Amino acid sequence: MRIVVAPDSFKGSLSAAQACAAVEAGALRAVPGAEVAAVPMADGGEGTLDCFLRSRAGDAVEVAAADPLGRPVRARYALSGDGRSAVVELAAASGLPLVEDVPPDPMNAATTGTGELIADAVRRGARDVLVCIGGSASTDGGAGLLRALGFRFLDAAGAELPPGGAALARLASIDGSGVPDAVRATRFRVACDVTNPLVGPDGAAAVFGPQKGASPGQAAELDAALTVFADALAAAGGPRVHDLPGAGAAGGTCGGLVGALGAEPSGGALLVAEAVGLPAALAGADLVVTGEGRVDGQSAAGKVVSAVAVLARARGVPCVALAGGVAGPLEELHALGLTAAFSIADGPRTLDELRAEAAALLSGAAEQAVRLFAR
Amino acid sequence: MRIVVAPDSFKGSLSAAQACAAVEAGALRAVPGAEVAAVPMADGGEGTLDCFLRSRAGDAVEVAAADPLGRPVRARYALSGDGRSAVVELAAASGLPLVEDVPPDPMNAATTGTGELIADAVRRGARDVLVCIGGSASTDGGAGLLRALGFRFLDAAGAELPPGGAALARLASIDGSGVPDAVRATRFRVACDVTNPLVGPDGAAAVFGPQKGASPGQAAELDAALTVFADALAAAGGPRVHDLPGAGAAGGTCGGLVGALGAEPSGGALLVAEAVGLPAALAGADLVVTGEGRVDGQSAAGKVVSAVAVLARARGVPCVALAGGVAGPLEELHALGLTAAFSIADGPRTLDELRAEAAALLSGAAEQAVRLFAR
Repeated sequence: MRIVVAPDSFKGSLSAAQACAAVEAGALRAVPGAEVAAVPMADGGEGTLDCFLRSRAGDAVEVAAADPLGRPVRARYALSGDGRSAVVELAAASGLPLVEDVPPDPMNAATTGTGELIADAVRRGARDVLVCIGGSASTDGGAGLLRALGFRFLDAAGAELPPGGAALARLASIDGSGVPDAVRATRFRVACDVTNPLVGPDGAAAVFGPQKGASPGQAAELDAALTVFADALAAAGGPRVHDLPGAGAAGGTCGGLVGALGAEPSGGALLVAEAVGLPAALAGADLVVTGEGRVDGQSAAGKVVSAVAVLARARGVPCVALAGGVAGPLEELHALGLTAAFSIADGPRTLDELRAEAAALLSGAAEQAVRLFAR
Repeated sequence: MRIVVAPDSFKGSLSAAQACAAVEAGALRAVPGAEVAAVPMADGGEGTLDCFLRSRAGDAVEVAAADPLGRPVRARYALSGDGRSAVVELAAASGLPLVEDVPPDPMNAATTGTGELIADAVRRGARDVLVCIGGSASTDGGAGLLRALGFRFLDAAGAELPPGGAALARLASIDGSGVPDAVRATRFRVACDVTNPLVGPDGAAAVFGPQKGASPGQAAELDAALTVFADALAAAGGPRVHDLPGAGAAGGTCGGLVGALGAEPSGGALLVAEAVGLPAALAGADLVVTGEGRVDGQSAAGKVVSAVAVLARARGVPCVALAGGVAGPLEELHALGLTAAFSIADGPRTLDELRAEAAALLSGAAEQAVRLFAR
């Protein structure tokens, strides 16, 4: 029997690799001698880079870059063995935790460092870049990232703007003439797990600004600046990203990448699955076990469990999900390809207990599910 | 697909019949059109009579009898269609709830009424009587029950003792000469789910006396009286039941039935399963779903889940257990024939929540388990 184990992390308790180990142990108790392939998964958010590196889908490249406030930081991205594709996690150089040592500066924080990582990957030959966004410190619409790739953001006098979202209020034009051909020739995909538009009451500044330290007044100012930015992207020949679902992810970085470089926003988990080789692993498998902290109707929208279910179904492989919590209705997930979902809870338990004993409980649930499957 | 549903009650939340309904609903969502056979189960304790009556394994017979304090009560037992076998639940005429309207009287409470039900069944032709014990108000060693069947309990002067456990301290001899041949020709089986001996620190008086209102001094007095009783049973030619495991069940009623009538103590659930026709229902089934409030190592000792698993295994039918709580290790149950066990908990939940939402949670767990089975 061949069993593929492809869980997301269980947030607050287990990394995806730890979840794999727990499921594998349970599966082997159920069917000693089973062939188990561990494929730790991620949904394109934080943790995706680690997932790639662990799966050997890429090798780590560490480079010098700017943190959200322009200070030097060393950050990693993943480059495929053939050097043609790269995975860049925004949190690596532009994440909020990097600037928690100083007071928040939501108006001036920028995504420059992430652009430096991308530029390095393109210089090394990558022409397919997956940008995993989430956890950013900035609300600059990805302007810093784009600047590092050769774009210039100019005010009415033709002078270059300083970094940060607030300065975009004075943006008059975007000059892409200095962007290298190699960057233009690169396919950019953006993995994000939110559907917020770039601007407006559900936009990047209004919804995520406060988490980054923006006062209500600052959030309104940033929202206005992002509107100017989106207008300028469209004026430069790009698509309108003001209301694009997902454009608001990571302080608008998704919107900037789409507007300036034609990046393709995409459900993160399916991209990750392809990049870590899950489709190949599923070929000929008898069962796949996936999981995450919580499975619910929302899981149908591009999360790990739904991506694994979709890929499994296409190959005729039954798919079982194990989760800390399973909240119905599950019809949509079943329709996508999920065979069954079980909670790891073994009876009355607090959330803290489930987290503290997640490895043993997940292992036990996997054992029982595989026993039922293999009967 | 043919699915047999054979759960115990979920104590504190669902009767066995309610549990059947919940599992059936989930199974039909998983496999519309499946043929589902509901066989509500019990373990020989309280609730067993209802289980028989619901399963149509017997018809209810209601008769006048004495409650534990000798007051009139109407009580039911089950008589099989052919009238050859009966199921008598001790709690029907001799249960503690019947005397909760008055102060407890542990010294004088008696099992007379249960004997009257048995006598009625024997008069109607029953020669195979299953006595389900548990929940008694008395600690009389079943002396009241035996008296109703024709036994006489005499003091040193040859006078008949009054009812109740305390009087047995003055027991000098047991006269069985008046016991009808029909009673002598009847096979008695006793379904009990405890292993306590009749007397001593783990005996009926010491362990269960306090629940019935006995003070420590009264419990000691009753223990001494039960010792005199057991001595007299042996002197009358019966087996020694002082230390027999299970003899202490229901205030020593099991010990009295064994000592006076050669009754066979037995794991209750297997007896019930046979009586309600579970073996026949399992023939040709694809899956059986059982369950109870809690599944653990103890479940291997004669409870419903283990009985169902044993019967299922013998017929090559996979067996899934669903429970409020599942506490490992489950190796012993797996070895008996249990394919897999899952908790109905869908995430962090308190015991009260699990009980309040037991029907919906059980139904959901059944749906997922049957989906995994049927994939």
